[in-house]
Amino acid sequence: MCAAEDPFVARRRRLAAWLSEQGLAAALLVDFEGLRSASLRYYTGHPMDALLVVWASGRALLVAWDVSLAEKRARVERIEPYSRFGRSLPRAIRELLSAPAFGSRARVELSGALPFPLVRELEQDLDRVELVCRGSGGVDEFTAGLRAVKDPGELEALRQACRLTDELSGEVERRLADGWRPSETELALHLEAEARARGAEGPSFETLAAGPGRSFAIHAFPAYTAEAFGGRGFSILDFGVCWEGYHSDVTLTAARGPLSPLQERLREAVLAAYARALPQVKPGADPRDIGADIDRFLSEAGFPMPHGLGHGLGLEAHEAPSLRPPQPGAPGAAAAGPNGLLKPGMVLTIEPGAYHPEAGGVRLENDLLVTADGHELLTHARLVQPDA
Amino acid sequence: MCAAEDPFVARRRRLAAWLSEQGLAAALLVDFEGLRSASLRYYTGHPMDALLVVWASGRALLVAWDVSLAEKRARVERIEPYSRFGRSLPRAIRELLSAPAFGSRARVELSGALPFPLVRELEQDLDRVELVCRGSGGVDEFTAGLRAVKDPGELEALRQACRLTDELSGEVERRLADGWRPSETELALHLEAEARARGAEGPSFETLAAGPGRSFAIHAFPAYTAEAFGGRGFSILDFGVCWEGYHSDVTLTAARGPLSPLQERLREAVLAAYARALPQVKPGADPRDIGADIDRFLSEAGFPMPHGLGHGLGLEAHEAPSLRPPQPGAPGAAAAGPNGLLKPGMVLTIEPGAYHPEAGGVRLENDLLVTADGHELLTHARLVQPDA
Repeated sequence: MCAAEDPFVARRRRLAAWLSEQGLAAALLVDFEGLRSASLRYYTGHPMDALLVVWASGRALLVAWDVSLAEKRARVERIEPYSRFGRSLPRAIRELLSAPAFGSRARVELSGALPFPLVRELEQDLDRVELVCRGSGGVDEFTAGLRAVKDPGELEALRQACRLTDELSGEVERRLADGWRPSETELALHLEAEARARGAEGPSFETLAAGPGRSFAIHAFPAYTAEAFGGRGFSILDFGVCWEGYHSDVTLTAARGPLSPLQERLREAVLAAYARALPQVKPGADPRDIGADIDRFLSEAGFPMPHGLGHGLGLEAHEAPSLRPPQPGAPGAAAAGPNGLLKPGMVLTIEPGAYHPEAGGVRLENDLLVTADGHELLTHARLVQPDA
Repeated sequence: MCAAEDPFVARRRRLAAWLSEQGLAAALLVDFEGLRSASLRYYTGHPMDALLVVWASGRALLVAWDVSLAEKRARVERIEPYSRFGRSLPRAIRELLSAPAFGSRARVELSGALPFPLVRELEQDLDRVELVCRGSGGVDEFTAGLRAVKDPGELEALRQACRLTDELSGEVERRLADGWRPSETELALHLEAEARARGAEGPSFETLAAGPGRSFAIHAFPAYTAEAFGGRGFSILDFGVCWEGYHSDVTLTAARGPLSPLQERLREAVLAAYARALPQVKPGADPRDIGADIDRFLSEAGFPMPHGLGHGLGLEAHEAPSLRPPQPGAPGAAAAGPNGLLKPGMVLTIEPGAYHPEAGGVRLENDLLVTADGHELLTHARLVQPDA
């Protein structure tokens, strides 16, 4: 047999090697409401609502809310129903870590996403094992680094997501140029329905469609309304699709003139920032430096950017690497990975934006794959001028 | 002037009184990606992506990612841009708590949702103030208790959400009876589009539509697919609408015969559990006891329930009270509130369900308002038999 190794087993093998290096007997990750993480899906294939223990041997136990679903989806050695622990997370952790599978004084790492009061309580109660719970340097950071570099199966899903996104955004561009003036809601629901009709699992996140009266907001709230999209001024459409669990994310801005001088400056600033950022995306570059450079550039242009320049894409719409200036100690800082430089196989967004309370907002966002010698654009959204 | 007090100010006044009782100078709450909480919207009107400090005087400072949006939405004394702190949560907390506004040794409570490594680090760094971070008995539990009892404005929004939900589910029932066989996707997108067209902010959560081949799962994954809805066996539709921030949540099951004896038993068990649960919903009842009673009842019927019997509804689709058996120390256990008994003004779901890997699943869910002497049904979803 020379079949390729099950990707989930391969990922756990890498985690297991890291656990051994770290002198850890096991790591415990969770994905429940309020504590969401796609890392469980990454390591097991099971989509959600579960607790995962991975031992330094690579063996995995999944405690799943929905055992029937887990039996169809999870590629793990053992599945237990969450109801065995009264569907109580503290009880499940306590009972799992008290099992003979853990030798006395075994070091076990808990995800650093767990709430302070819960971990403090576990520390007090569990004296047989030694609990480790870190931000920087911990199991979440290691996993973020692993997830950031996509394997071939992941890349194929991301390419499919990006292809479909290009199809959809191209159609929107053409229809806007042909005089289409949908409501924000009509546009968003059209995209979400078409995405599913063409094979996507769903939208990547709630589509943001903001006409000229609402594009001033970084992220439109509500995500879309009955207002018109594509009229005079700036309209922002931020959307993506989820293909077999993998997310795309693009933003196109429709700029309909005549634009005011201030609006021209916003538009030019974003286009220039985008053109400046793109060539910086290559292996070995520090994503935080790219973020800091564009932050500086847009600040000097008079429009300090209120959000990061970009983020990784994968099983989550926001994951490592983060293209933001360094922020010591921030949750998510850990997500940059122990060695935060760009590597071939990373997929990320570049999305400079500039916003003004009266003039509206402009954002341009595409998805890039870091290659051996630079990058490949996976999507091709544009800052369109339907009447130009 | 005898205008009604601004509801946001009124809510903060109650929080402020509690802070004083607890000897706390202030409380700090957050609502960022990965750390979502509608409590900021509850106390300020600002929808998301912010950090909130409320002092024992009732005064509030909102640190908002999107200041333009905050200026339109937030009813607070002061707004600061998150960018002032480099958009870093640890830095923002550190700088805010180092400000002269906090006297030496002031006790400040941090939300118990904050991750363990972050709070531990803050404890080490901030020696001027005394940090408190609790699960049970803390500010999150207090807020959950406050949020659980709705004020008149909240009730009106919930009634609107429920009215629209009834309209939509009634239409689905009638069309299924008339022979409609939509795909899961067609049904879900129809509901989401109609909800918005009729004034909702959006769906309450991603609509779950599971035809007979997928209803075995507690929560269908993916939420909907190209499979048919409403064919022979059980199809589950779980949906709701969000009206001015407030959520409804119903589940109807379409049971199309002929049913197998096992399917008849599943159906009967859920109907009996529902009929048994309803009269228990009244002021003074302990929601955990109701949950435990129905758990026992369904276990004895041979179908142990893999999820809670119900949950509160409000600014979140899942909030206090929780109708689950007591689970000491669970995150969310705190959400039951310091005095976990049902009170007039609470709005909650009752949703018994029974699932079988081959026979499929049945769930019936409606929304109830606890009244002075019992409850009022706000929605009227049914376990329908389109061909009966």
